Amino acid sequence: MNTYTKITPEIVAELSQIVGKGNIISDLERMENYGHDETSAVDYGHMPEVVVKPRTAQEIAQIMQLATRLHIPVTPRGAGSGLSGGAIPIFGGIVLSVERMNQILEIDESNLTVTAETGIITNELNNQLISHGLFFAGYPMSLETCFLGGNIAENAGGGRAVKYGVTGRYVLGLEVVTPEGKIVTLGGKVTKDVSGYDLKQLYIGSEGTLGIITKATIKLLGMPKAKSDLLVPFKTPEEAIAVVSVIMKKGLIPTSMEFMDRTSLDMSCTYLNETLPLEGVGAMLLIEIDGTDDRQVEQELMAVGDICEANGAMEVYIAEDKNTQERIWAVRRNIAEALKVYSPVQSLEDIVVPIGFIPQVLPELTRLSEKYGVTIPCYGHAGDGNLHATIVKDPKTTLGHWHDIEPKLLRELYAFIVGKLGGKISGEHGIGIKRREFLREVIPDAEYDLFCTLKKAFDPQMIMNPGKIIEIR
Amino acid sequence: MNTYTKITPEIVAELSQIVGKGNIISDLERMENYGHDETSAVDYGHMPEVVVKPRTAQEIAQIMQLATRLHIPVTPRGAGSGLSGGAIPIFGGIVLSVERMNQILEIDESNLTVTAETGIITNELNNQLISHGLFFAGYPMSLETCFLGGNIAENAGGGRAVKYGVTGRYVLGLEVVTPEGKIVTLGGKVTKDVSGYDLKQLYIGSEGTLGIITKATIKLLGMPKAKSDLLVPFKTPEEAIAVVSVIMKKGLIPTSMEFMDRTSLDMSCTYLNETLPLEGVGAMLLIEIDGTDDRQVEQELMAVGDICEANGAMEVYIAEDKNTQERIWAVRRNIAEALKVYSPVQSLEDIVVPIGFIPQVLPELTRLSEKYGVTIPCYGHAGDGNLHATIVKDPKTTLGHWHDIEPKLLRELYAFIVGKLGGKISGEHGIGIKRREFLREVIPDAEYDLFCTLKKAFDPQMIMNPGKIIEIR
Repeated sequence: MNTYTKITPEIVAELSQIVGKGNIISDLERMENYGHDETSAVDYGHMPEVVVKPRTAQEIAQIMQLATRLHIPVTPRGAGSGLSGGAIPIFGGIVLSVERMNQILEIDESNLTVTAETGIITNELNNQLISHGLFFAGYPMSLETCFLGGNIAENAGGGRAVKYGVTGRYVLGLEVVTPEGKIVTLGGKVTKDVSGYDLKQLYIGSEGTLGIITKATIKLLGMPKAKSDLLVPFKTPEEAIAVVSVIMKKGLIPTSMEFMDRTSLDMSCTYLNETLPLEGVGAMLLIEIDGTDDRQVEQELMAVGDICEANGAMEVYIAEDKNTQERIWAVRRNIAEALKVYSPVQSLEDIVVPIGFIPQVLPELTRLSEKYGVTIPCYGHAGDGNLHATIVKDPKTTLGHWHDIEPKLLRELYAFIVGKLGGKISGEHGIGIKRREFLREVIPDAEYDLFCTLKKAFDPQMIMNPGKIIEIR
Repeated sequence: MNTYTKITPEIVAELSQIVGKGNIISDLERMENYGHDETSAVDYGHMPEVVVKPRTAQEIAQIMQLATRLHIPVTPRGAGSGLSGGAIPIFGGIVLSVERMNQILEIDESNLTVTAETGIITNELNNQLISHGLFFAGYPMSLETCFLGGNIAENAGGGRAVKYGVTGRYVLGLEVVTPEGKIVTLGGKVTKDVSGYDLKQLYIGSEGTLGIITKATIKLLGMPKAKSDLLVPFKTPEEAIAVVSVIMKKGLIPTSMEFMDRTSLDMSCTYLNETLPLEGVGAMLLIEIDGTDDRQVEQELMAVGDICEANGAMEVYIAEDKNTQERIWAVRRNIAEALKVYSPVQSLEDIVVPIGFIPQVLPELTRLSEKYGVTIPCYGHAGDGNLHATIVKDPKTTLGHWHDIEPKLLRELYAFIVGKLGGKISGEHGIGIKRREFLREVIPDAEYDLFCTLKKAFDPQMIMNPGKIIEIR
């Protein structure tokens, strides 16, 4: 294990010289916020020794040069909305927050790109694009708070990935600061490029373990001219989930196919003080379709609606106006928060399976729920095969009991997802610290060795967000 | 510079034990074919010392273990249809051909994937998918000969990338043999995955310099139900190319937007004994549109046709029947071959620029053509900003003169493309040996250093297709 240099007043002074005294936090109370992310706080959290808030890539380069020289761990931080502990400074050291780097640098209408600093809030980016008739197709559920940089570092998925794919598809160019403190510009505004290794792909989804993403050029799309949502209740979750692959096999590609079981719906509606027609409902699908004109969208909507009705849907509600659409999506977006309010002791999972195998997941969740005596509300991006099963501690049991059963349950779940269905343990939330040990268990040695090879090559001193994804001793 | 072990009869015998005697080629005459690819043969070519044709990844692993132990360079080879010298064994050693690994292993309709060995011909793969109503959206112009493995190793683009993107978007899983001879399975059938570093992205487009791709799982799409092509002549190439970004800015996304200047059209028509209405024509656009129904395709076709007519098109021909479509596409696909027949001494370029800047490329080509006294026929994937300007030797000048001016012209061209337009020197053909030295000149040191870091980490002995993309001394 690495032994890192502890932060001293001299080091704080040196950091102040780089970013300015007002952009350093070193008192415990104000550092508190930087010691956790949205991963269950009971199990994860570690205080930084100092928080720095640089304004430019040049300042970040200087910070990394200092960290390299003195052997100090640096944990990059976006909005702290991560769900696997990626932004938690588990070895202390420096938390490097990009919150002040939040400017849009250029909206290039002729090349359909936007270039922005990575501390910008995803929704803010899209709001500034509306008047240009353009949008960034990434749509993480946390878009009201999460930063562009975090989206890229985690290769965030979200609610539109069925049609549009995940964040990485839209990243044309990156500016990255390496652990040694070099500023590297990768890619650009071209849509095809085989001029050497495609290094930007390495940084996408690398959870800040290979460098700090300071700037991104994003490919934009023209705003779809028409959009409509279907809300489709089913008596059982099994019926709802089975419809998803039927729709996909017909060659229909909705923008979204979100699954919400009854518990998830109840919790979110309560949290938002919202009402939905839930009598006799076991689960719902929220299906969005967008396109170039109303007629096309309506046609696809009808086709999807017909499939739902032929496969056990209780009703097919159409939400055409913006208000209703936003209300329904708010229910979907707030499930995670609502479940957390209901029980802060939980494990929010992010399993992903090949789309045709998604009906096989629910019976296994039921089996595990019964075996371990926990409830497992489930929702997520069914159209991607990606389900956020949330294992919730039974309030009647002790925390000790929870800590005993949680890893056992997860091991069984992961063995099923990976071993039986050819799935993966994380589709969009990442490994971080939450899944690090499990990753070691499910990934074959040859692949794991390559992970270590890569990490050692790009961060030989092991100062760049150490302890995340993999552990190198 | 590395000094490699020369192939001895003992080594040939050991290789025979691995792949069987019938799958070794060591006589000069039969090795001839394996000493070049489709890159201009005048300048590039090098004989292998031995050619091996393994049948399985296990055999390849044994070959790589032998190569590692004895320090022998190994050059992986697909169909040899590459255009930057990637498959040329410039240090001799072993050429490892995957030509016998050409089986489709599984067509999985429930997950919309195909898993195949990488020696399968791209067109053959698609032919076997037709009866399933599915297709692989990669469409390199050499699809009648090129192998799936080469498509992936070069991250091939092609004629459908405007709408569908390049090969890499469809690669869900890979089996790779590392330089040390380990077999690694990456990805799978899931469409989202952030379970550790996305190493398959590293191998896509790495030109066989990091490992040998032996198996791939490809995401399939439902065959579009309707398709139509427009052939649109313009008086000047400048007018034709200017229309491309006008179409894109309107939010229309054709499947293809191919550009062909008059010389390219003439050469290909002559080569194919084909006739097109070319009177007064300076260039043509070939625009394909596909979609879910005839009405939608017709509507988009009309919209695109109207834009062309409003922007100087002489005519808008619609090719709705399959025969006419295939005839026109054959003209487009055969330009490279036709130009090579006309003048084997040439440099087939692959520049790519941000789509809005594409009108600025042609005047620069004209300037360079005049300055250096060469003709530069030009065609390519205009909708991606990717142009195959082909610098052709003036038959009246000497080869010595050509070798003098070619690098000078390319340096000026690349400086313009990269420095002025933020473009790249290769959009889909790769760096190989053809552009290796130029890459060094246009890529900033910090990025180039990372290329070297990556290569050294993944191929510490420098035996895996050495001398391609980068040169490490």
